[in-house]
Amino acid sequence: MTEPDIFYILGNKVRRDLLSHLTCTECYFSFLSSKVSVSSTAVAKHLKIMEREGILRSYEREGPFIGPARKYYDIAIAKTYVTTVTPNLFWYRGLELGEPMLEKARIDLTRIPSENEGLLGMVGSFLELTSELDKILQLLQAVESRRDRLMKEIKERYLEEIGDMTQLAILHYVLLVGEATVDELSDRLNLKEREVLVKAQELDRFVPLIIKDGVIKIDEERLKQRIGGENDAGED
Amino acid sequence: MTEPDIFYILGNKVRRDLLSHLTCTECYFSFLSSKVSVSSTAVAKHLKIMEREGILRSYEREGPFIGPARKYYDIAIAKTYVTTVTPNLFWYRGLELGEPMLEKARIDLTRIPSENEGLLGMVGSFLELTSELDKILQLLQAVESRRDRLMKEIKERYLEEIGDMTQLAILHYVLLVGEATVDELSDRLNLKEREVLVKAQELDRFVPLIIKDGVIKIDEERLKQRIGGENDAGED
Repeated sequence: MTEPDIFYILGNKVRRDLLSHLTCTECYFSFLSSKVSVSSTAVAKHLKIMEREGILRSYEREGPFIGPARKYYDIAIAKTYVTTVTPNLFWYRGLELGEPMLEKARIDLTRIPSENEGLLGMVGSFLELTSELDKILQLLQAVESRRDRLMKEIKERYLEEIGDMTQLAILHYVLLVGEATVDELSDRLNLKEREVLVKAQELDRFVPLIIKDGVIKIDEERLKQRIGGENDAGED
Repeated sequence: MTEPDIFYILGNKVRRDLLSHLTCTECYFSFLSSKVSVSSTAVAKHLKIMEREGILRSYEREGPFIGPARKYYDIAIAKTYVTTVTPNLFWYRGLELGEPMLEKARIDLTRIPSENEGLLGMVGSFLELTSELDKILQLLQAVESRRDRLMKEIKERYLEEIGDMTQLAILHYVLLVGEATVDELSDRLNLKEREVLVKAQELDRFVPLIIKDGVIKIDEERLKQRIGGENDAGED
């Protein structure tokens, strides 16, 4: 898929919502359809468009109960897209995630003069800034490749050890956005706010959270203490 | 404008082409219309959509000749958008350009363990990677803010000193994409390939280029020598 197609796909809220649900877990059609506020015909159309553009992949699998095989979907690309739009610049690029390419670099824009006497000096500075931009994009590729792999491991581990999909959905969302309101999560998970709070309290037993004034986030203080504790225990 | 609207705007090739022309110079309607391959009704519709979404601004100004005032357009935003789509992550963010925020940083992902024993260690590493991501996005904001300002200065200076719009369009494009084929430039500027080459040779007198096998790029070697020369002359 070329870069511009992704903008077409992302230019629609229902498609963005579908992608967002798909990053958390394997989804089958009726599950996805229950998560968004449009008709199942519309959902089918959007899924078809995304499959045609190569963003989604579908496969059939037996459900847990007797009955016909269900059609499942997952995201078929792993990319970070960057685009700049200003009165003077317009460009876009897609970075393929996978193996991190540049994990360590020192970026220093201050050494590139911000005032230039002549046209040639300006052009020279522009080229230097562009070469720093290339390094920054490689770092971005690396950090997103690492976060992608790690999120996959977190999802697998959570399902293996604890097995609760709703708790995992809360953890996934909180890790992605930094902090989430109970309201947002209630919308997203199709649960009452009280149910979100109960699930968050269950999650808190495995991953320490701060749940306060309707906002949920990771409790980094307690997380560090517990990681320290785990390591100490491991050394005994 | 919220982030997702930009994806809708960018999801259409004619709109991308219009934006691309607008970053090089002030454009009036019939000029823009001559640059893209759709009807002027379609161009008017796309310009209207982009104006409504706050991406473009229009204003009337007298043309150089006697006659009615012309409607000019320019880009009204200065942002870099980043989005990641993988089976595990989906997020997008718009970075407002302007004053650079973080111009200097050391990024080192290798110090974050890539193998974690327990779930908590994984969550801890994910948070650390996310905080590196935040730094990388700030560096991206800084480099694009600097490049935007510098490109503005280059455009102004070129028009002031040399005054040739077509040469400037070649310089602008080559700076943006690194290297351009004569073919691309011929398409983009609506000129015959031979005319592109003539204009590139004129540009070369002011900004040294390598023009070879139908590809045009900045000659960094000669650029450095000439900047050195300029500075030496300045010191005398």
